[in-house]
Amino acid sequence: MLADELQHKIDYKTKPLGALGFLENLAHKIGMVQQTTSPKLIKPHMVVFAADHGIATAGVSAYPQEVTYQMVMNFLGGGAAINVFCKQNNIDIKIVDAGVNFDFPEGLNLIHKKVRKSSRNMLDEPAMTVEEYQQALENGKSVVKEIEETGCNIIGFGEMGIGNTSSSSLMMSQLFNIPIADCVGRGTGLNDTQLKNKINILSKVIEKYPNLKAVEEIAQTFGGLEITQMIGAMQEAYHQNMLILIDGFIATVAISVLFKKNPEILNNCIFCHVSDEYAHIKLLELLNQKALLNLNLRVGEGTGCALAYPIIQSAVNFLNEMSSFEDANVSNKE
Amino acid sequence: MLADELQHKIDYKTKPLGALGFLENLAHKIGMVQQTTSPKLIKPHMVVFAADHGIATAGVSAYPQEVTYQMVMNFLGGGAAINVFCKQNNIDIKIVDAGVNFDFPEGLNLIHKKVRKSSRNMLDEPAMTVEEYQQALENGKSVVKEIEETGCNIIGFGEMGIGNTSSSSLMMSQLFNIPIADCVGRGTGLNDTQLKNKINILSKVIEKYPNLKAVEEIAQTFGGLEITQMIGAMQEAYHQNMLILIDGFIATVAISVLFKKNPEILNNCIFCHVSDEYAHIKLLELLNQKALLNLNLRVGEGTGCALAYPIIQSAVNFLNEMSSFEDANVSNKE
Repeated sequence: MLADELQHKIDYKTKPLGALGFLENLAHKIGMVQQTTSPKLIKPHMVVFAADHGIATAGVSAYPQEVTYQMVMNFLGGGAAINVFCKQNNIDIKIVDAGVNFDFPEGLNLIHKKVRKSSRNMLDEPAMTVEEYQQALENGKSVVKEIEETGCNIIGFGEMGIGNTSSSSLMMSQLFNIPIADCVGRGTGLNDTQLKNKINILSKVIEKYPNLKAVEEIAQTFGGLEITQMIGAMQEAYHQNMLILIDGFIATVAISVLFKKNPEILNNCIFCHVSDEYAHIKLLELLNQKALLNLNLRVGEGTGCALAYPIIQSAVNFLNEMSSFEDANVSNKE
Repeated sequence: MLADELQHKIDYKTKPLGALGFLENLAHKIGMVQQTTSPKLIKPHMVVFAADHGIATAGVSAYPQEVTYQMVMNFLGGGAAINVFCKQNNIDIKIVDAGVNFDFPEGLNLIHKKVRKSSRNMLDEPAMTVEEYQQALENGKSVVKEIEETGCNIIGFGEMGIGNTSSSSLMMSQLFNIPIADCVGRGTGLNDTQLKNKINILSKVIEKYPNLKAVEEIAQTFGGLEITQMIGAMQEAYHQNMLILIDGFIATVAISVLFKKNPEILNNCIFCHVSDEYAHIKLLELLNQKALLNLNLRVGEGTGCALAYPIIQSAVNFLNEMSSFEDANVSNKE
């Protein structure tokens, strides 16, 4: 049995039993995904999906909508947090226009997967039509397919989209049947009044769509184009048996949509950090997952994945490179 | 004011205010230590001090005493956890014989600072004489002096010594006036009976030395040669204004000795992880410090420092490499 072989290999490394804690769980998990006692992380990638949100103009965010395209330009220029951390840790980064409300100039190192300029305003109509939702899923899948063909076996997903915590809160509330107030955080920095306002607006949205049941319907009605492409991308990554790095609140909502249809997808997922947002802490509990890092991050972009990556590499390295008690002639426990 | 300049530089990076959480605190701290808004980490080093303990034969550890020298040989062969993580993260590693109960052969890449073969058995006499304690401090300082001369400005300390959680628990209990039972953990893996036995033995030790008051006296009576060399090394690192990486329970006890004499030493310290041991959690609370990682590690050797290092590097990198809102033409909060 591979599970036992992996555990045996971990237990006989020159360290007290279990003393590498969470790294031992990680090593075991990665070995099981790759079906080997000598796993390897190959060509790590980070994909950042960007899109705008119809609801952003309703006052749910502390930042104006144009920040989405400005940050995409910042990603392409290498100046954002995710760029710095990916560069440091040798992670290839890809930026995807999933639906930004902007006409990007030619010649950028941008993956063009725009379904439309911004999702629709949920206060008036579902965020996406069924066709737009399907297209976004397909676009996300196609991005991962191309990356997988390079040999990559570990992939993280980030997002940029002013207003996208609103989508995520609505999805969490409906997927897990939790009051919206418990799913809403300060996002990128709302004050008390703005937070109250956000909860009021989202409550109105929920009232407008009283009969959503199917997971897909929830995602199509409340999601965003970047979130939906991320869902498609995660689905394809699982299909290709890649390791999937889960970032913060929004990425955790995205994987929750797939979890609701197939809980086994979590076998391939590494939850990289738990953010400062209460809703994220709650959501990880609902998925019964412990995150690697707890650094009070709330940047998004996939930053938690990029920061956690060296520790994931450490889990693989100790499994492959540490001596066993026997190899090193070290006495085991009496 | 440098503190304000650093905060301003952090706040105007292209991310929501405060959104890099703990990394922002770290970047600020490192900037203050180096007195610059553009800090650099140069030639990171990890020093592992090894020594044996007279009390180890009394049944306080799950492992036999010979594991200390066997693990030193394992460090020198590159097969231990700390080797793997230092290699991955480009950290220079130095192994110091501070007092191992073994005659090492010639020609090893080992720093010879043995004060004596093992500390004395505290059940009979203080762990070190005053002279041995002073010698150990000096030996530790000399190791750091040499490393500092290479240009290194960030240094972590690890330890190996069967029985050294007993020394650490006794020191914690006496330094902070806490019942010994609250300072004792399972070390490298004691069962319930063994744990009870360890508490009984340590209680006897405490009864034997009822009038210890001075910090130095506590360290000399209950310490170990590797712990004392670590104390000297940390003192020298502070004297040289280096960044000091603090590993788990034992390293935290070592810095506590210096903290008791000069709390400002904590300005230079980065607490890298909180271990699985209750006593470590409690000790970090007493020092009012939050650790970077919480991975249930209890290996020692400095592994927590080596694993945390890439994140510390990330804190420096975001400060130096991320664009500001102005540079990147990104709109700030409305």
